[in-house]
Amino acid sequence: MCDHCGCQEKKRVLKLQKHLLEANQDLADKNRALFRQKGVKVLNLISAPGSGKTSLLESTIKALKEKIPLAVIEGDPETERDAERIRAQGVPVVQITTGGACHLDAQMIHRAFHQLENHEFQILFIENVGNLLCPSSFDLGEDLRVVLVSVPEGPDKPAKYPAAFYKAQIFLITKIDLLPYFDFDLEECKRLALAANPHLRVIPLSVRTGEGMDEWLSFLQGLVSTSRV
Amino acid sequence: MCDHCGCQEKKRVLKLQKHLLEANQDLADKNRALFRQKGVKVLNLISAPGSGKTSLLESTIKALKEKIPLAVIEGDPETERDAERIRAQGVPVVQITTGGACHLDAQMIHRAFHQLENHEFQILFIENVGNLLCPSSFDLGEDLRVVLVSVPEGPDKPAKYPAAFYKAQIFLITKIDLLPYFDFDLEECKRLALAANPHLRVIPLSVRTGEGMDEWLSFLQGLVSTSRV
Repeated sequence: MCDHCGCQEKKRVLKLQKHLLEANQDLADKNRALFRQKGVKVLNLISAPGSGKTSLLESTIKALKEKIPLAVIEGDPETERDAERIRAQGVPVVQITTGGACHLDAQMIHRAFHQLENHEFQILFIENVGNLLCPSSFDLGEDLRVVLVSVPEGPDKPAKYPAAFYKAQIFLITKIDLLPYFDFDLEECKRLALAANPHLRVIPLSVRTGEGMDEWLSFLQGLVSTSRV
Repeated sequence: MCDHCGCQEKKRVLKLQKHLLEANQDLADKNRALFRQKGVKVLNLISAPGSGKTSLLESTIKALKEKIPLAVIEGDPETERDAERIRAQGVPVVQITTGGACHLDAQMIHRAFHQLENHEFQILFIENVGNLLCPSSFDLGEDLRVVLVSVPEGPDKPAKYPAAFYKAQIFLITKIDLLPYFDFDLEECKRLALAANPHLRVIPLSVRTGEGMDEWLSFLQGLVSTSRV
């Protein structure tokens, strides 16, 4: 190992991480087959901490739970706080506490999904660990990846964290009720996101005012009505 | 390797990561000795994306640059945007773009510090990659670690992301001008942070209104006046 930089160690870690990602991919593909077999649509929500993933899920569940059976897997480094918030909405939820680990992986989801097998649901939301970087590398077997950026975070995030956007289908710009208080150029944010991934569907919304929620909820209903369940 | 979980691979990666962290620690210690030899106080700023690290640095530099020679190392997964903002303030800055990597390490800082060696400065700010998880594990050789949470992120972050708080000395609660618009209990946030680390100094502040900035700036000036430079 060279004295000052750990190059050799780094190369070995990178090589093993590549293997680990491949093993994750294999299991993600198995998860995907399992989800299809059970007739469940699975969404993986990725964002920085505090972008409003849990609040969005609370509002979404309130609006849809009488129409579509839902379930949630919550990922956090520590605490059951988010699971408690979701449980209060009356839908099945499994909390994964990663013990500080910076992302969910396909294995964690595989186990959590088995904990949900006594429940019937058509959409499963996975709230990933609050981190705009590491979760992007780990396929969980989801049908759709949703990336969120909130207005207070600033419009430049798609340029600075493009990897989170490459593999996503949906980009939610959250907390748009705060636009009057921030120097946040919505069009610029959309433009940067579409530069990273031209196939993104962008939905700006606010759970507080309800603006944009109709589009999000219709999108979710469309997922189920077009499924082959 | 077991078929469904990649256990063996994981163990091997964890073992190598331990070696990598040890190699990082060795170099961090060398950095620390180098910083002391040069009479530079070094602060490592850690937060989620959008907590206001760059805005805080802009305001700090405006207030202090005539009194204390300053320099900045900027870490981002992509783009030179933050370095351009700091450069506009007229202080030396080195941008590290990690190419998607989720944290800075001691080696990156070692190289960046050498790029600054033609400049004279007493305080070096390192703005880490926007991530409240991974940067916590990597000592850069800093004298002080500063963790930031902004009001829009919510008061529960110290409970959910305690590792970022364990090794920090300073906790800045930023964007407190937004308190009227959020259900953010400042005392609860402080309590959760002190539960993770009772030795934290907590400074709530806003770069927009200037509230709390005096305490932060006095703290920085105190660092230099008590240094043995």
